Amino acid sequence: MRNDTTTGGPGERERQALDAHWRAANYLAVGQIYLMGNPLLREPLRPEHVKPRLLGHWGTSPGLNLVHTHLNRVIRSRELQVLCVWGPGHGGPAVLANSWLDGSYSETYPDVGRDAAGMERLFRQFSFPGGVPSHVAPETPGSIHEGGELGYSLSHAYGAAFDNPDLLVACVIGDGEAETGPLAASWHGNKFLDPVHDGAVLPILHLNGYKIANPAVLARIPEPELDDLLRGYGHEPLHVTGDEPMAVHRDMAAALDTALDRIALIQRTARQEGVTERPRWPVIVLRTPKGWTGPAEVDGLPVEGTWRSHQVPLSGVRDNPEHLRQLEAWLRSYRPEELFDQQGRPRPEVLACVPAGERRLGATPHANGGLLLRDLPLPDLERFAVPVDKPGATLHEPTRVLGDLLENVMEATTDRRDFRLVGPDETASNRLQAVYRASGKAWQATTVTTDEHLDRHGRVMEILSEHTCQGWLEGYLLTGRHGLFSCYEAFVHIVDSMVNQHVKWLRVSRRLPWRRPIASLNYLLTSHVWRQDHNGFSHQDPGFIDHILNKSPEAVRVYLPPDANTLLSVADHALRSRDYVNVIVAGKQPCFDWLGLEEARAHCARGAGIWPWAGTEDGTRDPDVVLACAGDVPTQEVLAAAQLVRHHLPELSVRVVNVVDLARLLPAGEHPHGMTDPEYDALFTRDRPVVFAYHGYPWLIHRLAYRRTGHANLHVRGYKEIGTTTTPFDMVVRNDLDRYRLVMDVIDRVPGLAVRAAAVRQAMEDARTRHHAWIREHGTDLPEVAEWTWQG
Amino acid sequence: MRNDTTTGGPGERERQALDAHWRAANYLAVGQIYLMGNPLLREPLRPEHVKPRLLGHWGTSPGLNLVHTHLNRVIRSRELQVLCVWGPGHGGPAVLANSWLDGSYSETYPDVGRDAAGMERLFRQFSFPGGVPSHVAPETPGSIHEGGELGYSLSHAYGAAFDNPDLLVACVIGDGEAETGPLAASWHGNKFLDPVHDGAVLPILHLNGYKIANPAVLARIPEPELDDLLRGYGHEPLHVTGDEPMAVHRDMAAALDTALDRIALIQRTARQEGVTERPRWPVIVLRTPKGWTGPAEVDGLPVEGTWRSHQVPLSGVRDNPEHLRQLEAWLRSYRPEELFDQQGRPRPEVLACVPAGERRLGATPHANGGLLLRDLPLPDLERFAVPVDKPGATLHEPTRVLGDLLENVMEATTDRRDFRLVGPDETASNRLQAVYRASGKAWQATTVTTDEHLDRHGRVMEILSEHTCQGWLEGYLLTGRHGLFSCYEAFVHIVDSMVNQHVKWLRVSRRLPWRRPIASLNYLLTSHVWRQDHNGFSHQDPGFIDHILNKSPEAVRVYLPPDANTLLSVADHALRSRDYVNVIVAGKQPCFDWLGLEEARAHCARGAGIWPWAGTEDGTRDPDVVLACAGDVPTQEVLAAAQLVRHHLPELSVRVVNVVDLARLLPAGEHPHGMTDPEYDALFTRDRPVVFAYHGYPWLIHRLAYRRTGHANLHVRGYKEIGTTTTPFDMVVRNDLDRYRLVMDVIDRVPGLAVRAAAVRQAMEDARTRHHAWIREHGTDLPEVAEWTWQG
Repeated sequence: MRNDTTTGGPGERERQALDAHWRAANYLAVGQIYLMGNPLLREPLRPEHVKPRLLGHWGTSPGLNLVHTHLNRVIRSRELQVLCVWGPGHGGPAVLANSWLDGSYSETYPDVGRDAAGMERLFRQFSFPGGVPSHVAPETPGSIHEGGELGYSLSHAYGAAFDNPDLLVACVIGDGEAETGPLAASWHGNKFLDPVHDGAVLPILHLNGYKIANPAVLARIPEPELDDLLRGYGHEPLHVTGDEPMAVHRDMAAALDTALDRIALIQRTARQEGVTERPRWPVIVLRTPKGWTGPAEVDGLPVEGTWRSHQVPLSGVRDNPEHLRQLEAWLRSYRPEELFDQQGRPRPEVLACVPAGERRLGATPHANGGLLLRDLPLPDLERFAVPVDKPGATLHEPTRVLGDLLENVMEATTDRRDFRLVGPDETASNRLQAVYRASGKAWQATTVTTDEHLDRHGRVMEILSEHTCQGWLEGYLLTGRHGLFSCYEAFVHIVDSMVNQHVKWLRVSRRLPWRRPIASLNYLLTSHVWRQDHNGFSHQDPGFIDHILNKSPEAVRVYLPPDANTLLSVADHALRSRDYVNVIVAGKQPCFDWLGLEEARAHCARGAGIWPWAGTEDGTRDPDVVLACAGDVPTQEVLAAAQLVRHHLPELSVRVVNVVDLARLLPAGEHPHGMTDPEYDALFTRDRPVVFAYHGYPWLIHRLAYRRTGHANLHVRGYKEIGTTTTPFDMVVRNDLDRYRLVMDVIDRVPGLAVRAAAVRQAMEDARTRHHAWIREHGTDLPEVAEWTWQG
Repeated sequence: MRNDTTTGGPGERERQALDAHWRAANYLAVGQIYLMGNPLLREPLRPEHVKPRLLGHWGTSPGLNLVHTHLNRVIRSRELQVLCVWGPGHGGPAVLANSWLDGSYSETYPDVGRDAAGMERLFRQFSFPGGVPSHVAPETPGSIHEGGELGYSLSHAYGAAFDNPDLLVACVIGDGEAETGPLAASWHGNKFLDPVHDGAVLPILHLNGYKIANPAVLARIPEPELDDLLRGYGHEPLHVTGDEPMAVHRDMAAALDTALDRIALIQRTARQEGVTERPRWPVIVLRTPKGWTGPAEVDGLPVEGTWRSHQVPLSGVRDNPEHLRQLEAWLRSYRPEELFDQQGRPRPEVLACVPAGERRLGATPHANGGLLLRDLPLPDLERFAVPVDKPGATLHEPTRVLGDLLENVMEATTDRRDFRLVGPDETASNRLQAVYRASGKAWQATTVTTDEHLDRHGRVMEILSEHTCQGWLEGYLLTGRHGLFSCYEAFVHIVDSMVNQHVKWLRVSRRLPWRRPIASLNYLLTSHVWRQDHNGFSHQDPGFIDHILNKSPEAVRVYLPPDANTLLSVADHALRSRDYVNVIVAGKQPCFDWLGLEEARAHCARGAGIWPWAGTEDGTRDPDVVLACAGDVPTQEVLAAAQLVRHHLPELSVRVVNVVDLARLLPAGEHPHGMTDPEYDALFTRDRPVVFAYHGYPWLIHRLAYRRTGHANLHVRGYKEIGTTTTPFDMVVRNDLDRYRLVMDVIDRVPGLAVRAAAVRQAMEDARTRHHAWIREHGTDLPEVAEWTWQG
């Protein structure tokens, strides 16, 4: 980044040009909210020029326009690469206006030209059915951030800056958003930002004083207190305050110059002089009126500078002549005739501050990460697979095996630096610590001698904030890199709402031809519901799967690999994939190895399949019963149940089906991975009882399979929200997912069994009773369970 | 609160007594983690005295024990009422140890006496199957906070302090938890704490340096930076740092005395002198080693003061004689013979600092809020009901009608101050602003002349943080008061994980006879998926219902009132209820009034019922088709569809069923509100087609109803994750929930229709096509839709 040229700040003429750009952007923002005709006010404004539904947020727009105008200036004067994250994304009209001004909008959407006709389209389409959303969104050139839900701008900005040493990520944070938890936590991103390998993040805290209808907290504490807060967050605050445009232009330009000089100095000292002390990065505090330059009063009430300017300040324009008059005066106050030529094109002086080509904020390839994305160098899985001579003869911790693979990926990207592993301080707890051999944990704060694996240049990111982890990873992926989020299963619900927004982003992006596919967002959910022996009920929740499967089917995938090799295969697939959210649920505790690598690959490619070695059917007819399973613990219980059935009721023909890819259960028309009915029937039969042991809430399986012919015969066991601090086997017993219960389910459902079956059923009941007595006495699982192995 | 007695700090003898109490608590914490026999070390420690599964968190325990010991001292010396929220709730052994010491444990659980036998039980039950969880949990006397998931301690503390002027709420915040977003946001609670009507919150930030395996951010920034941060949060920091116990006792006592003197001064100036300036409340920063007083080294690696002491520092005690020796030395280092008498009872000097009766932290009634709860004074609904002479003749905004009711509740609790309304700055947006007539919005920060409804003593709580809103309300309810959370439907997902923990708390509490029922946590979800005309896709998500219905059925209720009077009835029921999470989804836009108050009451009491006036069946036989609906927008579409069917196919016998209480669809055995099969069949028939228009994801209805006889005939329409910025009717068309589609569904499903039906179906298709053309042109809904009214 060539940003070491200190300038003397803009002269009067440059400030006039900046102001012209700002006025043009403000004019275009107001136009989008109100107008569907007469865009250049070539004739007096009439009611029919005004949209029937007035939608949009004016309040934040002038501030966003100011920031955009001034970023233009420094990008141009310093030849910077800048990406801007617009936290107050409700101010869509502002960002759209600027993209139209810099030409990137018309390049992206040629039907909206940079002329009078295009301006009319720009106005009309805004918040119009079939047009563009009112917020900064995937449709907006130059954006990686929706800004509808608030809280994630700054973590997105850090994610974008990691491993982008030549990039400056500006991030506008509204004072409303600043009240959210995720935003409040994300200020500490500066303890993880490496001035050598990462770019810079420049937060611009925009205090316009109000959120929707209330004052904002940070705007209503004394400035020294706010300064303390920002210094406490590790920043050096620079203040820009005012409501007189030319003075604000002067001060904003000076503050940006100061900030960029400091950033340049920080990067130079770190990169050239090897200084390792954590720098104090600048933050700009911009305090301007809400709805600045809009109507000062409407209907006798103050509007500019108050919460009343949050959305549409003049709401009755079509019916109220005074409102119409005020709107026209407001629009004309920007002097559009000075800003746009006869053809409606911005005049050269308006565009004097606008940079060229990919330096334009609306045209940066970093905001369309797929353009920059390279395939991840993934190794041959053979090197990491566990040998399986026969099923169930050995045990491995699946996530530990995956850790070796991830170490390799981390190692292979040492120079490229386009892969990161994030997690809330659980990498080692989740047994992925092999990665530390290839990269330490990012850390810029103080260290002590007993620390391990901390590394100023590390690409393993650990902070006890799932929100921050998710935001970092999203920002990293959206700017064209790869990653994995490892998380305790129960606590990934913390980011339910964040992943909602990411899936929505993916869904919309997939429909935009100019947006190129990005790497999938991959979750490894471990320390799962069945193995929270220690932490108990508060740590037991398998519902993230349900949450994800409510989302756009084109973008969501859920995998439940039953052992180490299937986990490798699934992870390999997920890391190669694009534009998905992949949820992988896998255990970290020792787990039987069922499949060799080739079998695992074939099984995962099918997504669901019969394990012939585990069943007893002869292939000549449908089995008497299907024992199905999804998830590592349910798979073990089903195999133990299959073995019990084989032993006690050898005449029964049993099929064992394992499901890895949960969406396979859906009809083919409902999900790209869904099975056709014949495929489904071939696995589960049309009329035989199916006893299905599932990792999560049992009703999810019904919701996926209710349209199948055999659905009435489907009996699902799973987690029934019965949790506590106890042993692994006691957990499955309490939730009726244990081997003994599954055998009882078989006996209860297969018609015409021998009389002997009643005795077998009683033996199973007795085993459960034995379990209860043993655990009360010893606090451990029955030896017959603890020492169980598969006898094929 | 009599806390104005400044003491001179503890003398040498008092410090010895404090240290004895602290050592006793530490001894008991270690004992819980390790021992199942020989609790008083009356004989040499042998492997069989040690538990087979070693579970628990030692690292945070000595710090919690220190805080508890010193809180005991000031409670006693100043005669305070104190509730403590233990954020590092993983340190369950510490809080249990203290409760056993102060006698509250044995009073709550008489089988665990304060003697040697009781001590052995205390040890054995900890993290033992069927015993008590490893965390502070509902089972723990004196607790309102689980502390398994992290992030909510400080917002819980504020919630407990609101409207409890005589209460001091101490809140221990671990440096791990401090990294989370919800915690980071909750520091700003001090801008909402009224020194006149609220109690005090004393945060104690405990920096032991590590979370699980990593250093903690706040422990690794320079102390002046941390001071800036806490001052920026509006606090005055007091530091206690050390690893020499007697010095730390001296400094901790002094810091607590200083803090309590300041709090007393703040409250006196506000209450007696009427000072309104926002005070700078104290915060204590306690910096002590992780695993303090535990093994300094294990197997040659440093443990005390490092992340290695997070859980169980000596893990091989049963098999490794050196570990066993170290454990015995560790336990004996507390000199148990000085702490416990021959009967295993704590010696008097150990208990010298312990307060009496309800002042004990383990015995405060504030931690068992049901003891203090009073019924809410709810008015007659007649005063607020809208008159309904005939269905669908008038329109009201349901939430605005509810606002009038809430105003009355707010007014009626003016003196009692036991009702609060929380929301992320959306009270007016959600049309509940009538409440401002009875109470303003809590606000202690700066005000300006254009502000409206801000009030230093207000009980409407608005901050743009759903996490903080939820945490405040939970804390308020758990300490025996009432409230309502009003939230945009889509963004309530932000608190998915918090509500998980609250439901778990309720589930466990309901099984503890000593825990008295508390007021339900009531959500009003509005600005819902069908009416985000302006904000679009990012604001459209009905999935919170699915999330809630995965939780313990005994504690969750979901209501979808279709109009204003049903909303009143449901809200009245929710506000009277106990120990539930009630989710109410209702619109804020003008909605037809379908039922008069008495009909509404009867309909809500049934939870689901036939609307005979809307159908055409003659009562002699099952109808040809059932049109079912749940939610305000689907109800309108179903009624419009019923009208179309009546007009076009008058020979068809149609039943209209409306569902208010969603859990009614579940089988009676699955949920307390579930219908029996005969009840269900009486509404939906056993064999007729049912076209069900549902507010949310359609598959949820299948997941609830899949066991019903008629399930194969159930066809559900709902939100299919197709969203955008558009008109209300376009949203239902895009998701195939519109009246025309519903009529087509009827025609497609009823067998043996007249030939004419094909033409009707085509007319419906044509109407949809007309809609698409119209909206492209006008950006508004078809006049026939916009002007539609029910013609009964």
